[in-house]
Amino acid sequence: MSRSLTALDDDPVFAMHRGGKIDVNPSVEVPDLAALAMAYTPGVARVCTAIADEPELASEYTWVGNTVAVVSDGTAVLGLGDIGPAAAMPVMEGKALLFKKFAGINAVPLCIDAHEVDDVVRVVAALAPSFGGINLEDISAPRCFEIEDRLRDLLDIPVMHDDQHGTAIVALAALRSAARVVGKDLSAMRAVVCGAGASGIAVSKILIAAGIGDLGVADSKGMIYRGRDGLNPVKADLAARTNAAGHTGSVESALRGADVFIGLSGASLPESAVAQMAPGAIAFLLSNPEPEIHPDVARGHVPVVATGRSDFPNQINNSLAFPGVFRAALDVRATTITENMKLAAAGALAALVGDDATPEYVIPSQFDERVAPAVAAAVAAQARADGVARR
Amino acid sequence: MSRSLTALDDDPVFAMHRGGKIDVNPSVEVPDLAALAMAYTPGVARVCTAIADEPELASEYTWVGNTVAVVSDGTAVLGLGDIGPAAAMPVMEGKALLFKKFAGINAVPLCIDAHEVDDVVRVVAALAPSFGGINLEDISAPRCFEIEDRLRDLLDIPVMHDDQHGTAIVALAALRSAARVVGKDLSAMRAVVCGAGASGIAVSKILIAAGIGDLGVADSKGMIYRGRDGLNPVKADLAARTNAAGHTGSVESALRGADVFIGLSGASLPESAVAQMAPGAIAFLLSNPEPEIHPDVARGHVPVVATGRSDFPNQINNSLAFPGVFRAALDVRATTITENMKLAAAGALAALVGDDATPEYVIPSQFDERVAPAVAAAVAAQARADGVARR
Repeated sequence: MSRSLTALDDDPVFAMHRGGKIDVNPSVEVPDLAALAMAYTPGVARVCTAIADEPELASEYTWVGNTVAVVSDGTAVLGLGDIGPAAAMPVMEGKALLFKKFAGINAVPLCIDAHEVDDVVRVVAALAPSFGGINLEDISAPRCFEIEDRLRDLLDIPVMHDDQHGTAIVALAALRSAARVVGKDLSAMRAVVCGAGASGIAVSKILIAAGIGDLGVADSKGMIYRGRDGLNPVKADLAARTNAAGHTGSVESALRGADVFIGLSGASLPESAVAQMAPGAIAFLLSNPEPEIHPDVARGHVPVVATGRSDFPNQINNSLAFPGVFRAALDVRATTITENMKLAAAGALAALVGDDATPEYVIPSQFDERVAPAVAAAVAAQARADGVARR
Repeated sequence: MSRSLTALDDDPVFAMHRGGKIDVNPSVEVPDLAALAMAYTPGVARVCTAIADEPELASEYTWVGNTVAVVSDGTAVLGLGDIGPAAAMPVMEGKALLFKKFAGINAVPLCIDAHEVDDVVRVVAALAPSFGGINLEDISAPRCFEIEDRLRDLLDIPVMHDDQHGTAIVALAALRSAARVVGKDLSAMRAVVCGAGASGIAVSKILIAAGIGDLGVADSKGMIYRGRDGLNPVKADLAARTNAAGHTGSVESALRGADVFIGLSGASLPESAVAQMAPGAIAFLLSNPEPEIHPDVARGHVPVVATGRSDFPNQINNSLAFPGVFRAALDVRATTITENMKLAAAGALAALVGDDATPEYVIPSQFDERVAPAVAAAVAAQARADGVARR
């Protein structure tokens, strides 16, 4: 083993990961017995008693009010699929790192060995007293929809499946700026979303909520339409609310004359399909690490291209959304995250770009320090407007 | 609320607890997109894939190998009883703080909303991929025995209910030194343990394993003896293995001529009961915050007195044991914590006192920096000897 580890550590990515990427540290000094008697027994008993008498004190006198769980069952990790909970940990640690870096939030990565929807729900619900919010991550579709819905119903703290809503928020924000660049109105656009997994479904829903003109969604069998055989409930619901144009064939055929392509499936897209889109079209090639078509090739046919990658312009990345969304949710002690709060987050991101939008700048950088505070301010205000803020 | 919080914060204990006592922090720098692409997507995918292929890499390239969960259901918190998971958090945070301070271990406090033994076991087992060990804490008896037993059977990482074994280890260590002070041999001593909850049972078991001469255990109904009506399985097992002297009455009557009293019940003890112990007797008054009898009164009748309090000599505190025990268990990647490992921990603690033992010094201070390394060294060696070390 030791030889192979040494070899792995020659790789700077592995060397960076050795021992993990996060730590738990004391935030108070306990230099002597007197301090210990305050931080631990017997002094701590007074704090416990106060919380038992007045439960809302827990978010003031414990770390719970500034702490979220990042929970995965390891069934849909990045583009790697069902690699199991242990192998998902490096992603969840990375996410925890970003929570602190971008929003000052303590995040605890919890990779759980649970498979049935009932079991995942039971485990996460049992953990709720320890956290101010729950970030679900890399859970396979369609299980992720039911798991999130049930936990949102059960718990009075915010629960968000980030693969769905983080992606949806940032994609909508980028689309608002891109629409500005090409001089079109969202309500007049027809979009094709390729991929009906967690992020495809969530992007479709937020685009509908934002008032997109028309939207068609494709899964691996082609476009989803009313009456197509064998649709699961989530897709049947989508079929009832989308595809006014009535496309029943392939993504390529639906793309003819379309204004927007959003790829979230890992499938590849032929150049000819992009070439036949409407003038002033927009292509979001969000599959990672390989976009649906090379961004430079797409740019030959459409003026605005975005990807999920950091080495091309316009990176659509969840880390633009989740830190600010949870910062706000914890700050106002929101009982839930409403659809309006997600739309507000997208609006705040788009507003940061504003009139500066260009084909190569439709979304801020992840390192733009204005991002998390702006998203948090908009989401907190919306939480208050929606009546889900506890302070 | 804000007025009452301000008033609470005038109390230095509450002021210290504001916002909690621990934080999660990045342990690697991510200053730019290049670093982010290593710590998070896309680079992180290589680490995930490596762990999926070779699961033991998880303890090298994630924080799991140096991280334990501190899990409570809030049913037996300090002397406060069943105050629920949310109100237990300050204790678990305090424990997490001590894990880092004394042993460099990341500890995550998890207060779970689960009541049935089956549910607690299921939740904790599901969390196992995220941790290198599980410290159970403040779970009521007799549930704690079954929960610990089942988790030890299910999981291949160390599981230890600290209220049982931490207390038992430190009490045994102190008793070894105290025996030295009074010039008696453990195998010739008769002890009375008052309290048959988690710590009373565990202390009794470790004293038996260490070869105490005779031992009687009392619960709220008096001494436990073979054939007493209504004993639960744990107490019936103890009755079969203890009380050779055949005491069937009160603690007071059993104490006549006894060499050792260990109080773990919260009950009070009359001075006359201590007065009738054998010459050169030992009294461990471990109920907190109120010892069974004032230590100074006890000292009028027995030469060696220990308590759970920091304001008297000889403080018997779990924090002398759990940091070193888990440090060793993580270092050697132990699959479990054996009885021998607990005895080794007690032996190491007693050896630190050694010939320096006096009536007022039978156990090291919690701030003695030799403690955790000495315990860890002894426990690691014993883990290897017992064949439960994976490296």
